[in-house]
Amino acid sequence: MPYISIPEGIPGIRGPLSIRPDIAKPLSDFTETLMRGENSLSRGERELIATVVSSLNDCFFCENAHGSVAQHYLQCDLAFIDRVKEDFSSADISDKLKSLLSIAVSVQKGGRHVTEVQVEVAKSMGATDREIHDTVLIAAAFCMFNRYVDGLNTWAPRERSFYTDRASHAAELGYRLEPK
Amino acid sequence: MPYISIPEGIPGIRGPLSIRPDIAKPLSDFTETLMRGENSLSRGERELIATVVSSLNDCFFCENAHGSVAQHYLQCDLAFIDRVKEDFSSADISDKLKSLLSIAVSVQKGGRHVTEVQVEVAKSMGATDREIHDTVLIAAAFCMFNRYVDGLNTWAPRERSFYTDRASHAAELGYRLEPK
Repeated sequence: MPYISIPEGIPGIRGPLSIRPDIAKPLSDFTETLMRGENSLSRGERELIATVVSSLNDCFFCENAHGSVAQHYLQCDLAFIDRVKEDFSSADISDKLKSLLSIAVSVQKGGRHVTEVQVEVAKSMGATDREIHDTVLIAAAFCMFNRYVDGLNTWAPRERSFYTDRASHAAELGYRLEPK
Repeated sequence: MPYISIPEGIPGIRGPLSIRPDIAKPLSDFTETLMRGENSLSRGERELIATVVSSLNDCFFCENAHGSVAQHYLQCDLAFIDRVKEDFSSADISDKLKSLLSIAVSVQKGGRHVTEVQVEVAKSMGATDREIHDTVLIAAAFCMFNRYVDGLNTWAPRERSFYTDRASHAAELGYRLEPK
């Protein structure tokens, strides 16, 4: 049960956002631009960063919602997503993405955990300044979203199929609010 | 030295935002609405929540920038802000604000740290659902901003006077980006 009165039947972040449409609008625009806007990091890579951070923050809703969208974009199976969450360093992903995920994991602990060495490694793997910037901001943003979702104890269906079934539709819709 | 190339001489969050104006726009609109929009929580109370969370995240820039703006709105001295950061439970603030700060402190640790009892206490002190919602989102948002600022190792002047000198101007300007 959510801690505050939220319309029933809206899972995760959409519930609390529905009671503050003035805030939902810029926050949705921010998410759309960061996660789906033109970028040298693919949408799948960005969703993978979001999934790993949400998993570390133990946010069931975000971990599954974004994990399923990552799976959809990357055209992989859920076991692959789970492997990345468990140990990305041994997963079948590029060294550049590994170096960016290492930065994201540090951001999840706290901004000061990111080291110059981590950033230098990412650059040596070909990561651009903008990719490093976006990785830090995506990881930081999910530290917000995860806390918002769980701090209000919002409703999250427990079946993983709920999230996988919706992934392609979610990817099609994007994050911007539907016009009323 | 910031970890990535950012125009020199722009302190804190404005530096990295300057290289991503498409993201800066919705993020600034979000901050403006959350921190300065019409609300039964005063601007000073909201800045105090942001300051306490930024202090717990050890984000020097945000702690001082928002602490100084809180001081400006609340018409108090910096020692009062420092007392709230050190131990808000014994500070000269309302019991309602204390109960909301207690929720914010839990959000800083992680969304799942917020308890039903904390929320019930806040409600018994007169906090509305919207005030609880906004407290959770402000605390969560500063867990993002703090990580964004420090994860990129942005420049932050060390003298507290830098922040107090700017507070009234910052309060006047608000968070929305200046039109170009």
